[in-house]
Amino acid sequence: MTRTTTTVVFRLEIAAASAAFGAVVAAVGDAGGDVVALNVVRTGGDTTVRDVTVQLSPDSQPLLADRLRSMPGVRLIDESDSIFLAHLGGKIQVVPTTPVRNREELSRVYTPGVARVSLAIRDDPSKAFTLTAKRNTVAVVTDGSAVLGLGNIGPEAAMPVMEGKAMLFKQFADLNAFPICLRTQDPDEIVRIVKAISPGFGGINLEDIGSPRCFEIERRLQEELDIPVFHDDQHGTAVVILAGLINALRLVGKSTGSLRVVVCGIGAAGAACAEMLLAAGVRDLIAVDREGALVPGVDYGNPTLNRIAAVTNPRRLAGPLSEAIRGADVFIGVSGPGVLQANDLRRMAPDAIVFAMANPEPEIDPDVAAPLVRVLATGRSDYPNQINNVLCFPGIFRGALDCRASVINSEMKLAAARAIAGIVTEEELHERYIVPSIFNEQVVTQVRAAVIRAAVRTGVAAIVTEPGE
Amino acid sequence: MTRTTTTVVFRLEIAAASAAFGAVVAAVGDAGGDVVALNVVRTGGDTTVRDVTVQLSPDSQPLLADRLRSMPGVRLIDESDSIFLAHLGGKIQVVPTTPVRNREELSRVYTPGVARVSLAIRDDPSKAFTLTAKRNTVAVVTDGSAVLGLGNIGPEAAMPVMEGKAMLFKQFADLNAFPICLRTQDPDEIVRIVKAISPGFGGINLEDIGSPRCFEIERRLQEELDIPVFHDDQHGTAVVILAGLINALRLVGKSTGSLRVVVCGIGAAGAACAEMLLAAGVRDLIAVDREGALVPGVDYGNPTLNRIAAVTNPRRLAGPLSEAIRGADVFIGVSGPGVLQANDLRRMAPDAIVFAMANPEPEIDPDVAAPLVRVLATGRSDYPNQINNVLCFPGIFRGALDCRASVINSEMKLAAARAIAGIVTEEELHERYIVPSIFNEQVVTQVRAAVIRAAVRTGVAAIVTEPGE
Repeated sequence: MTRTTTTVVFRLEIAAASAAFGAVVAAVGDAGGDVVALNVVRTGGDTTVRDVTVQLSPDSQPLLADRLRSMPGVRLIDESDSIFLAHLGGKIQVVPTTPVRNREELSRVYTPGVARVSLAIRDDPSKAFTLTAKRNTVAVVTDGSAVLGLGNIGPEAAMPVMEGKAMLFKQFADLNAFPICLRTQDPDEIVRIVKAISPGFGGINLEDIGSPRCFEIERRLQEELDIPVFHDDQHGTAVVILAGLINALRLVGKSTGSLRVVVCGIGAAGAACAEMLLAAGVRDLIAVDREGALVPGVDYGNPTLNRIAAVTNPRRLAGPLSEAIRGADVFIGVSGPGVLQANDLRRMAPDAIVFAMANPEPEIDPDVAAPLVRVLATGRSDYPNQINNVLCFPGIFRGALDCRASVINSEMKLAAARAIAGIVTEEELHERYIVPSIFNEQVVTQVRAAVIRAAVRTGVAAIVTEPGE
Repeated sequence: MTRTTTTVVFRLEIAAASAAFGAVVAAVGDAGGDVVALNVVRTGGDTTVRDVTVQLSPDSQPLLADRLRSMPGVRLIDESDSIFLAHLGGKIQVVPTTPVRNREELSRVYTPGVARVSLAIRDDPSKAFTLTAKRNTVAVVTDGSAVLGLGNIGPEAAMPVMEGKAMLFKQFADLNAFPICLRTQDPDEIVRIVKAISPGFGGINLEDIGSPRCFEIERRLQEELDIPVFHDDQHGTAVVILAGLINALRLVGKSTGSLRVVVCGIGAAGAACAEMLLAAGVRDLIAVDREGALVPGVDYGNPTLNRIAAVTNPRRLAGPLSEAIRGADVFIGVSGPGVLQANDLRRMAPDAIVFAMANPEPEIDPDVAAPLVRVLATGRSDYPNQINNVLCFPGIFRGALDCRASVINSEMKLAAARAIAGIVTEEELHERYIVPSIFNEQVVTQVRAAVIRAAVRTGVAAIVTEPGE
């Protein structure tokens, strides 16, 4: 595990004619921190205001702040940490692709020149794909109802997450993504709004919308729009889990057709994951929710549970997770902390593969699970095998938009999972390395190419593009 | 008038072993053009494909293309002009304010670090103004129903105009503006959508929405949102016309109180202009529409005409424009081409001031009008005194967002008009120079400062900012 440090900026007013600044530096050192930057904000007659940037462990921050507060000749004006500083004024901006410095440039990009471009699109609306930012632009749409692990925190509080997502779209796939944070959680209303704003976008990334509303919203938008709609919490997660599973199976030498899999937690991600694994050839899959193992034909009073029950659990096994997991080769948890016990792992088949994806606290403490299984993956960056959607959504959207796919279908998602898995070479493959680094530039390139080929093969691509792998 | 040239890129396949390229260059010269750039696209065995960028007069383009088509050893593959080239792939992009290059940066701007920022906003939603892009971001909302002079061309065709507007917001006021082009023209629906997407925005710029729907949409949004809503076609135009009028009055030595004004064309801009002039102290104003001079108390079967009729025309003059204009000091046309005759101008008071704003063809040919009036202004960049909204909207939004104004009220608009007028010094002021250049950097600075002061004075500013002029 890596040691976490945080960066904090202390704004201090320090008496000029004193040894106070030396004492500040000493206090930082005593707290185990380093002074990494120093700026003078202003110099008065008797005092100087300085921003002192300190790197230290998060635990030490309050202790250091207390000590600075009690120090003679020093007044602690403010402390802000690097996370908050990185968010000041927002994390994205909208910029022109070319400058507008004089009348000639203005008349080319705005009136009167722009009128000819508008008329060309009026006469052939498909030209919006080439003559506007549409083909490079994705709406990141949320209603703020299921944000990270934080729950229903509303549209304003969801903004920093959506801005972060937009940053990743640009950084990894050179796509413009713009947050649309909605002050409504009504599915009809959300569908109506997304349809209405869709002309300017080449794709819709639904994000952090609670289950089960997310299923209906996604399905209706897919039916009614001619641009791809993709709920990343469902499918991005499922794609990367499948990628990791493909590589875990390479390690243990098992094949999907004979595999016993338990998927625990049939929310947005769990349902998508179960469906994706079936599409990938898994036959013996048991879905487990609060009710225990879902059995075909039982009515759970919930369309999602009924839908998943109907296509899983061919042995019709009933009972709690501790029963369902007996003899399983693979456990995939997208549920909550503490759901899985060490004894459950001991009941699994040899070479057990466990994806404990609950975030930030996995279904079982990774340090407890690791010795009991062959391959362990989590959603966390501080353990090996982080299952991170960033491996999927940039490349999948880049591919879908480049070939102007009307949808992101099951074949495209499977192709993306296989592409991600394929980046890990035989030499690299290891129990602690089943998915590539998100900073590996091959990821977007390969996912994009695979997605384009699958879109062309399944007849959903409007234009033929060089996959260019 | 300036001579217009256009830039055209000819993509040519040219036989390798021939003098064909020399002939191409000669043909460009014969057409009065210059070769300004040359790129080899690909080289085959016998032929080379080259993009030849030529600057020439628009009239010569078809002639040159014909000549290239008939030239031995040359095949004209494609020709695109610089306006279309400038639009390829769109004119705006969404970029991160800081890069995401490694795990540490990722965890600061996205999960897990972002969670603390989201929770801070959940606990105090007003923090969205500092911790997200909200305070710097404006939605440019259109339904594509009244775009430029092109009419109801729909949301896709409106995109290039909205992207152009977004470029200007960034270039002139460092504001992020994002186009929201709606596939609905129903006022209820537009109001609902804009309210729902508002959490991520600091202000709403309504754009190119047809009259009379624009009035209702703006009014309802102003009532129901706590961020500024501004229909630029109405108020931006009115502010810049007033700015020009203030300076024209400095030239002729007349004052608003004793002025006779005719406003012709009571659509979005005309109604706003009439109201703004009344707010600025004009008392004798006659509004003229297709029905002739509007008379108080008459029912025109149109709420806008009735509203404007009720507050104008104190002398209750009836009849056509040619009657209303008799003895007028000022004519402001926001109507259509050819509405105004030379004889109408001869009936005006001495030192007549004429704003002929219909675009692209003014109410009267400027070359006909100029000798008959003291001051002439139009909406066109190829005549003096261009009344351009770019003088207004960047500074007005910059000011409103910086002091977190809840609205953009009449006082703020008047302040903006006076600020724009005030930039033209006594030495510069001239019949042909009544408004500053849009590229004068003082414009945004002064408008911003004036708007902030007016917002603070009228109690609509949430925070006190240094106007900093």
